[in-house]
Amino acid sequence: MKVNGTHYRSLWWDDAKGALQIIDQRWLPHDFRVQSVETLEDFAAAIVEMRVRGAPLIGATAAYGMALAMKLDPSDAHMNKVWEYLNATRPTAINLRWALNRCQAALLPLAEADRAAAALRLAHEIADEDVEINRNIGLNGLELIRDIAAKKPAGEPVRLLTHCNAGWIATVDWGTATSPMYHAHDEGIPLHIWVDETRPRNQGALTSWELGSHGIPHTYITDNAGGHLMQNGQVDMVITGTDRTTRRGDVCNKIGTYLKALAAKDNGVPFYVALPSPTIDWTVDDGVADIPIEERNARETTHIQGLAPDGQIGEVQVTPMGTPGGNPAFDVTPNRLVTGLITERGVCPATAEGLAGLFPEMAQAAE
Amino acid sequence: MKVNGTHYRSLWWDDAKGALQIIDQRWLPHDFRVQSVETLEDFAAAIVEMRVRGAPLIGATAAYGMALAMKLDPSDAHMNKVWEYLNATRPTAINLRWALNRCQAALLPLAEADRAAAALRLAHEIADEDVEINRNIGLNGLELIRDIAAKKPAGEPVRLLTHCNAGWIATVDWGTATSPMYHAHDEGIPLHIWVDETRPRNQGALTSWELGSHGIPHTYITDNAGGHLMQNGQVDMVITGTDRTTRRGDVCNKIGTYLKALAAKDNGVPFYVALPSPTIDWTVDDGVADIPIEERNARETTHIQGLAPDGQIGEVQVTPMGTPGGNPAFDVTPNRLVTGLITERGVCPATAEGLAGLFPEMAQAAE
Repeated sequence: MKVNGTHYRSLWWDDAKGALQIIDQRWLPHDFRVQSVETLEDFAAAIVEMRVRGAPLIGATAAYGMALAMKLDPSDAHMNKVWEYLNATRPTAINLRWALNRCQAALLPLAEADRAAAALRLAHEIADEDVEINRNIGLNGLELIRDIAAKKPAGEPVRLLTHCNAGWIATVDWGTATSPMYHAHDEGIPLHIWVDETRPRNQGALTSWELGSHGIPHTYITDNAGGHLMQNGQVDMVITGTDRTTRRGDVCNKIGTYLKALAAKDNGVPFYVALPSPTIDWTVDDGVADIPIEERNARETTHIQGLAPDGQIGEVQVTPMGTPGGNPAFDVTPNRLVTGLITERGVCPATAEGLAGLFPEMAQAAE
Repeated sequence: MKVNGTHYRSLWWDDAKGALQIIDQRWLPHDFRVQSVETLEDFAAAIVEMRVRGAPLIGATAAYGMALAMKLDPSDAHMNKVWEYLNATRPTAINLRWALNRCQAALLPLAEADRAAAALRLAHEIADEDVEINRNIGLNGLELIRDIAAKKPAGEPVRLLTHCNAGWIATVDWGTATSPMYHAHDEGIPLHIWVDETRPRNQGALTSWELGSHGIPHTYITDNAGGHLMQNGQVDMVITGTDRTTRRGDVCNKIGTYLKALAAKDNGVPFYVALPSPTIDWTVDDGVADIPIEERNARETTHIQGLAPDGQIGEVQVTPMGTPGGNPAFDVTPNRLVTGLITERGVCPATAEGLAGLFPEMAQAAE
């Protein structure tokens, strides 16, 4: 989408440098920095340090990482080693494994001499596919927004709430949860987005930056506020993204999503999850029981980064010296709380039947 | 409770200065500063700027404010003017109005010459009563903690979750939600407290400071994390405070409380609210419909204060320049989500009958 009037994707390949270009998202929303990712260590750091973040973008980044690996050493042994190395960077991100598996499956049958070029083509393909998937998620979600808008007096905004950043900078373009918003805004439906801050990493500031850059009205709120807003009729629909969705539609997403789903249920607000099919983990059924939750560094909760008064990126410590922090990074929203799943092939109920109906070949392959 | 081994209350009268001494809580948990409150403007600023915070402490502060007012000008007109002036400082805090009304009722019948001394005695009385009320809330809540501990293997901690700071520094001493914790810890029951950060003002850092000073094990978590912890059996009970409780037991408390109550309900975790009886608003039944929610300055959401690397209190801006913020400060938890109310007279169901059973004279007086 657009930044200062220029269209960007969140990553692109620089042929001259033979390197991936990413937006180093640690500096957003205060500073727009492009970084050249040139070594395997750069790739791992980009994912671990969350310079790139969001399931689809992590997947595409890993594919470019495999392309670099094949240029350095196209042997089977190296391919396996890099698979392990990159897969270990973010254990919860199903797209990471999905992208690495896809690369491995496509490259293993090839002669070593052909692998570098094929791996790069495949990375481009994965990136382009992501854009197309997200565009279609947007078109399918747009129908839901149109339905709400049709029941309102003309000019009254459709009020959506979103959690975390499932925006274009978390994908290659369009975003997942934001794609219906961009489509609706672009066709002239008035919107107002409640943007959850999303502690501890405040990804809501990224979503605010995205929406502001695109001209969509929004308000940044604490994660605590959404229940009150729903209770008072201020939210027409919730749309979030997901890092991993089980075959029956349990949704593993940024910590706090579950609380918003509970509030939506309690107040009759539709709760939709936007997901590209690579986010579906067909091997897992019960998300609460079977998805391991990443426990991240406690310092993310006790210290907060932002723009200091001197105009530099700085941080402050919120807690007293030595306070222990806990930092589970994701939670699981059981499918009973999810009104529907917005996929690139359409909207379905959050059930095994719903997902298998839209993606029969994937459901079957997993059996 | 104790700070560096010395016992403090959160406010005390300095006879020599003829002024109230408060802990300026804006600097906690990083700096322990005592402030002398010497003018009516000081009193209003102390409440508006949240140098003092928490319903009971605000009530006691207002009573000392009225004592100062009577020293300056004991006329009826001045009393009424100061009632209005102080009552306007925090519209949601029911204790504020309660304390001012109590002062007015006691002072109006007196000769003007007697009012200054009587008002000061009354303020002392209100402060001492608060300590006694909170001590009894603690003893009543202690029974609940003992029951949980009795069902656990010896040595395994009772795991409590709390939101905001309903601690001793939000009252005159003991706190409300924390009083059962201090009592349980002091009698040797092992505890572990999950402390909600409580955005936007991060009062969880205050609770962490309190608990750490008293030696109670705890972990500081984001507001988003509690649902996940409950879903995974990591929380035995939730105890929060309340700013205002309706006669049928709807609980108006710090924004986000409602979300924790929903999660507790969804996971069969007992959700208790600790409240001193002055917090009950006998004139309101339906909290969601009838309690106006204070909308505070949006800057509280977009900027965060803490200890800067240079050791000074500083702040950082989290959002992009110009992002609009929304900041509802409280929400209402409907009584159907509340397992019980812990009061100074005992524990009761969150119902009109429950509260009227414990406080029949108040319920009757309100009819």
